Amino acid sequence: MRYLTAGESHGPQLTTIIEGLPAGMPLTEEDINMELARRQKGHGRGRRMQIEKDAVQIMGGIRHGYTLGSPVALVVENKDWTHWTKIMGQAPLDSEASEEVKRKITRARPGHADLNGALKYGHRDMRNVLERSSARETTVRVAAGAAAKKLLSLLGIEIACHVKEIGGIAAEEANYASLAELKEKTEASPVRTFDPDAEKKMMAAIDEAKKNGDSIGGIVEVIVEGMPPGVGSYVHYDRKLDSKLAGAMVSINAFKGVEFGIGFEAARKPGSEVHDEILWDAERGYYRRTNRLGGFEGGMTTGMPIVVRGVMKPIPTLYKPLQSVDIDTKEPYAASIERSDSCAVPAAAVVAESVIAWELAAAILEQFPADRMDALIQSVEEQRRYAREF
Amino acid sequence: MRYLTAGESHGPQLTTIIEGLPAGMPLTEEDINMELARRQKGHGRGRRMQIEKDAVQIMGGIRHGYTLGSPVALVVENKDWTHWTKIMGQAPLDSEASEEVKRKITRARPGHADLNGALKYGHRDMRNVLERSSARETTVRVAAGAAAKKLLSLLGIEIACHVKEIGGIAAEEANYASLAELKEKTEASPVRTFDPDAEKKMMAAIDEAKKNGDSIGGIVEVIVEGMPPGVGSYVHYDRKLDSKLAGAMVSINAFKGVEFGIGFEAARKPGSEVHDEILWDAERGYYRRTNRLGGFEGGMTTGMPIVVRGVMKPIPTLYKPLQSVDIDTKEPYAASIERSDSCAVPAAAVVAESVIAWELAAAILEQFPADRMDALIQSVEEQRRYAREF
Amino acid sequence: MRYLTAGESHGPQLTTIIEGLPAGMPLTEEDINMELARRQKGHGRGRRMQIEKDAVQIMGGIRHGYTLGSPVALVVENKDWTHWTKIMGQAPLDSEASEEVKRKITRARPGHADLNGALKYGHRDMRNVLERSSARETTVRVAAGAAAKKLLSLLGIEIACHVKEIGGIAAEEANYASLAELKEKTEASPVRTFDPDAEKKMMAAIDEAKKNGDSIGGIVEVIVEGMPPGVGSYVHYDRKLDSKLAGAMVSINAFKGVEFGIGFEAARKPGSEVHDEILWDAERGYYRRTNRLGGFEGGMTTGMPIVVRGVMKPIPTLYKPLQSVDIDTKEPYAASIERSDSCAVPAAAVVAESVIAWELAAAILEQFPADRMDALIQSVEEQRRYAREF
Amino acid sequence: MRYLTAGESHGPQLTTIIEGLPAGMPLTEEDINMELARRQKGHGRGRRMQIEKDAVQIMGGIRHGYTLGSPVALVVENKDWTHWTKIMGQAPLDSEASEEVKRKITRARPGHADLNGALKYGHRDMRNVLERSSARETTVRVAAGAAAKKLLSLLGIEIACHVKEIGGIAAEEANYASLAELKEKTEASPVRTFDPDAEKKMMAAIDEAKKNGDSIGGIVEVIVEGMPPGVGSYVHYDRKLDSKLAGAMVSINAFKGVEFGIGFEAARKPGSEVHDEILWDAERGYYRRTNRLGGFEGGMTTGMPIVVRGVMKPIPTLYKPLQSVDIDTKEPYAASIERSDSCAVPAAAVVAESVIAWELAAAILEQFPADRMDALIQSVEEQRRYAREF
Repeated sequence: MRYLTAGESHGPQLTTIIEGLPAGMPLTEEDINMELARRQKGHGRGRRMQIEKDAVQIMGGIRHGYTLGSPVALVVENKDWTHWTKIMGQAPLDSEASEEVKRKITRARPGHADLNGALKYGHRDMRNVLERSSARETTVRVAAGAAAKKLLSLLGIEIACHVKEIGGIAAEEANYASLAELKEKTEASPVRTFDPDAEKKMMAAIDEAKKNGDSIGGIVEVIVEGMPPGVGSYVHYDRKLDSKLAGAMVSINAFKGVEFGIGFEAARKPGSEVHDEILWDAERGYYRRTNRLGGFEGGMTTGMPIVVRGVMKPIPTLYKPLQSVDIDTKEPYAASIERSDSCAVPAAAVVAESVIAWELAAAILEQFPADRMDALIQSVEEQRRYAREF
Repeated sequence: MRYLTAGESHGPQLTTIIEGLPAGMPLTEEDINMELARRQKGHGRGRRMQIEKDAVQIMGGIRHGYTLGSPVALVVENKDWTHWTKIMGQAPLDSEASEEVKRKITRARPGHADLNGALKYGHRDMRNVLERSSARETTVRVAAGAAAKKLLSLLGIEIACHVKEIGGIAAEEANYASLAELKEKTEASPVRTFDPDAEKKMMAAIDEAKKNGDSIGGIVEVIVEGMPPGVGSYVHYDRKLDSKLAGAMVSINAFKGVEFGIGFEAARKPGSEVHDEILWDAERGYYRRTNRLGGFEGGMTTGMPIVVRGVMKPIPTLYKPLQSVDIDTKEPYAASIERSDSCAVPAAAVVAESVIAWELAAAILEQFPADRMDALIQSVEEQRRYAREF
Repeated sequence: MRYLTAGESHGPQLTTIIEGLPAGMPLTEEDINMELARRQKGHGRGRRMQIEKDAVQIMGGIRHGYTLGSPVALVVENKDWTHWTKIMGQAPLDSEASEEVKRKITRARPGHADLNGALKYGHRDMRNVLERSSARETTVRVAAGAAAKKLLSLLGIEIACHVKEIGGIAAEEANYASLAELKEKTEASPVRTFDPDAEKKMMAAIDEAKKNGDSIGGIVEVIVEGMPPGVGSYVHYDRKLDSKLAGAMVSINAFKGVEFGIGFEAARKPGSEVHDEILWDAERGYYRRTNRLGGFEGGMTTGMPIVVRGVMKPIPTLYKPLQSVDIDTKEPYAASIERSDSCAVPAAAVVAESVIAWELAAAILEQFPADRMDALIQSVEEQRRYAREF
Repeated sequence: MRYLTAGESHGPQLTTIIEGLPAGMPLTEEDINMELARRQKGHGRGRRMQIEKDAVQIMGGIRHGYTLGSPVALVVENKDWTHWTKIMGQAPLDSEASEEVKRKITRARPGHADLNGALKYGHRDMRNVLERSSARETTVRVAAGAAAKKLLSLLGIEIACHVKEIGGIAAEEANYASLAELKEKTEASPVRTFDPDAEKKMMAAIDEAKKNGDSIGGIVEVIVEGMPPGVGSYVHYDRKLDSKLAGAMVSINAFKGVEFGIGFEAARKPGSEVHDEILWDAERGYYRRTNRLGGFEGGMTTGMPIVVRGVMKPIPTLYKPLQSVDIDTKEPYAASIERSDSCAVPAAAVVAESVIAWELAAAILEQFPADRMDALIQSVEEQRRYAREF
């Protein structure tokens, strides 16, 4: 399974084509819109989230509510495109194009793709970079993730995300009886966290950052239950599934790190407190007493919950000026920019969930027969039975 | 550029084929052996490192000291293969095969690929798993990395690694004037660290772990200087270079996390203290006042040093028993195993350096003309000039 | 460079996303529409070609007439979609859906993907197959090819196609002074052929086939001038460029074979009459006295014109009945179907040209620096100079 | 499944690494050597085939006769390497290296990769090209194909090859009762053909070419029986299996074309005589009355035999001089070279069989669960049953 995305932040639309979904999988616009809405919520989002209530249109690959096996095309229109048709138009400019249309962005914002992107692609107008490097693109990554999540859910695999830390405020270890409970509480939280005390403090920290014209980042966690054991492989370095998840997490705009299970804490504990003892009983098959390794051994799923965290840096678009350079004049200037979210971590958790879901679904489709949804369900179920009896 | 590796820990040899190196690049067995030797050093390594002084043989793709452009085949023989010809022989077993040869490994070691791998591939004898999942394979990843490092060095790109933390003992921030200095000091250290005080404590911690029949992990850092800006891309999620480095780091045996620049600390600081101000002067071109983002913005190199860290969990083979299960009898047993390293972090730093070097070289070959070494050197140099003048 | 396509024949639209075009390349909707129009012409096309004058919409990746380096999204709407919203709608069917909407296609047409596709994806309604397996999808392959051709043309590489044979009527060897002349004549021909005598006979053969309720196929040739030498590679089997062209040609709907230069005739001639003697002069550099090998030696371009032909079988949708089976009843029936082209070879030549252009552009972008159009042009020019002086 | 190959014609060895074979598949050196021997036979081969009786060594991935699931490393030593250690040595040349060692090849042979390869990779000594571009490399492609054929055979899929035409002498249509009969007769033939009359004429033509210092090519056919229907896909252009086979065929040294079923004849027949009527009976399921399309519809297998042909041009190394150029002096010279085969078509048939087998095995492993041989066998069997009952 693979997908490509296209679209600029203020262009007409975002587009994605997903190739490789099994045929006969139910998928509707509502399934996807639900996830798009989750991405738009969160304390600390700026004005744009209100402007644009994202809605997907299925433009291919699905008929009467079921996938055909052919590529799925998804479109999310940019609601404010009507105001940008000139500045972002695809047609060549005529000589009478207004000054506004021709005006270039020449001031590189620190922490963005602006300068490197302009260099790389030879753009003297950095709008040509920022329109694509914008996190707006994560909208269709969430759309693709929604398809992946639907697939996982039909296979009895459940996924959730929550916020562990914002601006230095860490949530208590979440004690949930089920992922359903975790989801219920965190989806109701304006900062998508399980800990009500931390929630208040996080919201206050966001408000404080906003007041200061600053921004804050945080840590999100994705949890997956129900993966069959033995997905991924140790036999070749590029087939390790945790490696793919790590790459996916860091591919999200502004993510600077990723860890599994106890993660970086593994550097501080003896082996006897890091590894998970193996148990067996007839009903459950093999399982682990603990889950410090976060669901992976040898680059393969163990059947225990996958636990993966990513760290998002604060949004670099600040009211508080950072120094930068104008690429035309080479003069320094103070990079103060107005419109911005002060914290996008709660939304980024949904993006993280989406990209992890994608990688897991893709790994399953690689390993199990992937043409027909019914055969896939049966084959994964059979693998679970086989594993129990192994 | 791509490579495949093959070989079991006690099989005849490890093999790798590297496809895509430019022609006309100098590369000798000595270049590679130097790196293999670095991987075998380090306080805390077990007996095997003494048995096997690894030496590479170039079996294709190089003539008279220069790459041909054709695939490069590298072989590292396993020195103790002579003792394993029966147990690990490729030929079918005849009926008279000894009991020793036929004896299966049925006890899954926690923290290893044993159980999931056996399940996945249907092996009732877990030797069939552990022979390949062994970190022995990293030998040829270091060999491939040596080729990549040679290429980088010819392009004026320097790479180093060092140990930041072992068993909870963190080194002080390394203050080095140049990578050359960093390398000189850390290569002389038995635990590959820059901080002499931490060095002593780390060695003591390793000895202590060994005495306790336990093991410890740690954190390694890889630093790269001289990358031209604009390598990688923001235009599509799977072209971000930091994402590829993250995947590579986690693909190393026992690595559970990765971070760039200030990494997870980015969750605890305001945006104004995370992003790097952009400066310019005529000689240097664009640069950053700080390097908290570790050399990446928008999934592309900024031209600042790349700083990436990985965390390695303690080696799971312990003298101290962890509970596990025999897959034949389903009986629990105490998984105590004798031969082992108590800490492999100093060696793992070299592996980390190797896999990072590989990804960077591959990214450069994707972006610049990659047929002839001389044209490549010229093209990268031209890109540096272009970036300075942009 | 890569692209994905989506869209069903009677769905709302065809979509393609092209990832990897250099930035700064001029590309307009007109550039693409011109090619789409070429694909719709040709004696022997059925009614649909009149219904749908295809027009592309650029939905991302291009601003003010130039590529941004970001993925390019292209959309071609299906004009008759308004009549198919129910039968091909994406939303789940409600209980009141009409009989027409629910009616399944259960009769497999010989020569189409119907039966194998239904089997593979588990479709009891073969509309779910035929909507995607339809040659309608080649519209966006031509759109993608138009972008590739624009790139080639900016690099001084020219491509043309013409029809060599239809229904057993072979054109005389085309003697053209330049590709421009070839294009001018063949584009003016209703069967896209250079030979006016053959043209009349081909048209008569098409009319005859139509009258008989039958269909005919043919052979198309694609010619490319100006490729620099040394594109592709002999060093690894999967890097040979002629191999990729062969795969691309056979990937076109209904194509059953491909050959280069004198092609299958090479089985009938001695080596001394097959290979091309190598000459050199100071102005031109190396060249060949003849071009029997069609522009390739060792899987690489020689700098001589690329000459590649593909054979298209007759369209399988016939008025004249072929026997087949109803997959529900398993009863035989006579597969007579009404609407159809009797010959699509002239249009298929444009598709062939498009897919060949794509592979060549992709190979160039792999080998030369591909971020900026200006740098690419310079680099290809430099390669030509280098080759002349080698 | 993927594989890389390395090795020069007069280097120490050829190496291949195959990644992705299922675990638990029986595979021995004998299985592979049998195929290597087939490749070395044939009327018209030169002296080298006698020098080197190729023998494979399994260097990884197989234990006690069964694949482990880990990558398989195969080595074929070059028997005459001992005479070439200096000329082809990997170590840098010292100043005393003899004139023989330093002597460059500067005369480009027409029809070989020499000139384009030298240009591309910047080699002034064309030995650096010809050592790798040599058909010697097909040895390990046959070795990889042997593994693929073993896999196919365990799935009840049988593959054969034979020679259809040599130097203009075409064999009669082969009328065989079973592939076993075809193989028995053609393997016994010195030119691997089914037609005893043609056999004599082909041998005479080879002898005649040899006498004239010339060479001849021919057409080979590969036939595959037992493929389950629905392998490959119509849903995306790059998933069509016949397209992949076409690419593989043309990737063989000296192959200039490929066709399926009636192939280029499809340009000369009406649709009613090209397409295969679909029949059904309870025991056999769906099948076709004829097999003009050679086992493919819509880029997928139909379950009918796959029939694919490739054309090999005459070997370009001729006694009879062709004109060429010395790249140092730019002087013309007559390219007469002594040692050579006058016809390699019978051997090339085995290579063709090998690369086709590889693509089919790879396609099956992509579509069916590929970790364990037993599960794979069961899954393919289940697909056949499903198809019969569809």
